[in-house]
Amino acid sequence: MYYSQQELESLEKRYRANLINSLSGYKSANLIATKSQDGIENVAIFSSVIHLGSNPPMLGFILRPTSVSRNTWDNLTTSQVFSINHVTEKIYKQAHHTSARYDGSVSEFKKTGLTPTCKNNFFAPFVKESPLQIGCKMRNNYYIKENDCRLIVGEIQHLYLPEKPAKDGWVDLGKQNTLSINGLDAYALPKLLDRLAYAKPDEETNSILNE
Amino acid sequence: MYYSQQELESLEKRYRANLINSLSGYKSANLIATKSQDGIENVAIFSSVIHLGSNPPMLGFILRPTSVSRNTWDNLTTSQVFSINHVTEKIYKQAHHTSARYDGSVSEFKKTGLTPTCKNNFFAPFVKESPLQIGCKMRNNYYIKENDCRLIVGEIQHLYLPEKPAKDGWVDLGKQNTLSINGLDAYALPKLLDRLAYAKPDEETNSILNE
Repeated sequence: MYYSQQELESLEKRYRANLINSLSGYKSANLIATKSQDGIENVAIFSSVIHLGSNPPMLGFILRPTSVSRNTWDNLTTSQVFSINHVTEKIYKQAHHTSARYDGSVSEFKKTGLTPTCKNNFFAPFVKESPLQIGCKMRNNYYIKENDCRLIVGEIQHLYLPEKPAKDGWVDLGKQNTLSINGLDAYALPKLLDRLAYAKPDEETNSILNE
Repeated sequence: MYYSQQELESLEKRYRANLINSLSGYKSANLIATKSQDGIENVAIFSSVIHLGSNPPMLGFILRPTSVSRNTWDNLTTSQVFSINHVTEKIYKQAHHTSARYDGSVSEFKKTGLTPTCKNNFFAPFVKESPLQIGCKMRNNYYIKENDCRLIVGEIQHLYLPEKPAKDGWVDLGKQNTLSINGLDAYALPKLLDRLAYAKPDEETNSILNE
């Protein structure tokens, strides 16, 4: 099955959105929560959270100006902070519903039954039902002129984990039922297959799963 | 389990890398292939490929200047093109081994046994063993000054799928055994849980899996 650039551009809009959104491979599933100056707590699902670097610890995500995430952007520009919360098997329906186009005056927490929780006096709420919660401060944002998106760069200020990481620092996301996203609306539960040793030239790459 | 920013920054370097790399949630698993002006075919695994937009169809990924992906950057600046190829259960060990620090004069295809294949006269090779292959042209790149990374923005010029998408354009990545990545070195096989309808305010969000 082959599509040229021209063929992709001539597809019906919704069909193309479903198709192109499937192509990056599995995406991360996170709820990003913010708070307005008026105290309205906003939460929205994002499939674009990525690792940017571990030194300093930074994550990023892509914000689309035309989407419901405008509340997120408004709150980011005033407060500079946001929380990232993993989506699990237990809350994926509620998480998905945060993408409905509610007005900025409406808290998606109230509409979905997800619970905002305050920790360490961090201005943005965390999602109580999420096992892994990260408090971030926006360090910068990059406007992507090709399609009016923004890459938000956040530094990690607070990290809450359900249990101690493995002895080398790795966190087994399978233990906490973190989901991944396939396309715009499909949720998948990953099952751990293997861990591999740091790759070195001309050496066989071995499993370190049972070390 | 709680870590403050200060605690994260004081962790041992490798421990911190394992920890922070686990936090974004599951990451996409792709091989990015390029070709030098001398004809040397380079391929490297990336866990940072993301969806940027479907109109026009664009994907992005993060390039770290200090990593082995420097060959990728050199080839991108001269040729402007690259291919993105999904990593599956069958090739994850070979895919992981592309992260070994081979010299720019060495093709990781030869070292791993992955097969470069030329299609539609596209300058960058595709990975034959990968079921989903995408030919991209670099439209732009954004230098992220906070940690010397670059966001590469690519427009999709060629798309090869193993079979026709679902009737609404969605591609079931589970059918082709695309993997996801947990942290720096763990590979997981996601299993489809559900697909949900487009969310609308104050309406219940229903499954569309069997429609």
